Amino acid sequence: MERHADQEFDELKQELVQMATLAEAAIGSAIQSLLLRDTAMAAEVMRSDEVINRLELVIDERCLRMLALYQPEASDLRFIAMALKINNDLERIGDQAVNIAERSLELFKEPPLKPLVDIPQLTQLVQAMLKQSVDAFVRRDTALARSICQRDDEVDALDEQVFRELLTYMMQDHRAITRAVNLILVSRHLERVADHATNIAEDVIYLVEGQQIKHNVLAELDKPASPPEA
Amino acid sequence: MERHADQEFDELKQELVQMATLAEAAIGSAIQSLLLRDTAMAAEVMRSDEVINRLELVIDERCLRMLALYQPEASDLRFIAMALKINNDLERIGDQAVNIAERSLELFKEPPLKPLVDIPQLTQLVQAMLKQSVDAFVRRDTALARSICQRDDEVDALDEQVFRELLTYMMQDHRAITRAVNLILVSRHLERVADHATNIAEDVIYLVEGQQIKHNVLAELDKPASPPEA
Repeated sequence: MERHADQEFDELKQELVQMATLAEAAIGSAIQSLLLRDTAMAAEVMRSDEVINRLELVIDERCLRMLALYQPEASDLRFIAMALKINNDLERIGDQAVNIAERSLELFKEPPLKPLVDIPQLTQLVQAMLKQSVDAFVRRDTALARSICQRDDEVDALDEQVFRELLTYMMQDHRAITRAVNLILVSRHLERVADHATNIAEDVIYLVEGQQIKHNVLAELDKPASPPEA
Repeated sequence: MERHADQEFDELKQELVQMATLAEAAIGSAIQSLLLRDTAMAAEVMRSDEVINRLELVIDERCLRMLALYQPEASDLRFIAMALKINNDLERIGDQAVNIAERSLELFKEPPLKPLVDIPQLTQLVQAMLKQSVDAFVRRDTALARSICQRDDEVDALDEQVFRELLTYMMQDHRAITRAVNLILVSRHLERVADHATNIAEDVIYLVEGQQIKHNVLAELDKPASPPEA
């Protein structure tokens, strides 16, 4: 029985890594479709989201089964609960890939506005954060998790740079407007992926160091909670 | 012991409703700050997000404690697991309120672009969906949940209308560009809130009708799962 539980934990970790891999690939393909102006690839990203959605359900069911069967204690229980939350975030990343693919299809209606440099760079950064956030979770690696949280600022700065640059394109030529707005939205979708990865990283820190954090939080919550710092 | 578990369930429901109320109020205040051009109100929205973040942790801890103490079966277990996921979505809605407040502060740097009509309407729609999604959860009301999923299309249409209208403003006058882009982003943030509410509503359907849905999904997953429908 004990060995069976261990095996389920391993399988859960593998499924989460698979989910992250699918989400990362979806983001990669969505951006590739944009760079290559490949309509079929964008359409494929939109179709493939169904696979991510189904894997989310499978992982949820596994978590529920593990909670019911093994009645795990303290740290395992926390791990499974965090897996449920992280699973939710990964599914949302799949949605962002779909959003990017939709913007790509809009962008294909006009010639390219400009060679894209910052967006591919942003994509690489965001993909690395995503992959590492799930690695940090399965290895309970808080050092890695903290490094991900720090990189979120880098992403925000790059997203802001894309935003400002595209504004200047629009100012100079009103024919650039639709394309520039769509590219701004692509950049924002990537930034949301980084937010999800950061959220996962925060969950890892909470998973490993939860007791202390919780204590501080609950102490503060003895003060009236709503309205806020009134 | 049984009575204590019932009481914890009631408290969990109350906390989720409170979390939804805070998130709904944050969205409302963020849009109010935009309409009234009230810098202090926008800043308050950004500060108050901390309260939502802390309540998320408290709810997570309660869920973990309930799982550990009561070793609940089938439907209660599923309810607690869904509470963890819904809690995550509600926290994300708080983040969207912060994003809107940030856009408001950007918008205050210039005079108003136009009287806002669609955005307040979109806000009301989204707030209603949010409130009802959590009501549907605590009452396990799938009819209400299904009506929320349907309204998501209405939100998408309104968001698209805002997008198209603001594009024409930009085309006509390049001085409108920065403001129009910021308003497009506000509209997109509201649309994301509706997505979260829809996600919660889907979780309610899954909670109540999960067994059948799961069965279909798992049957389909016996086919090779990755790459997708290749």
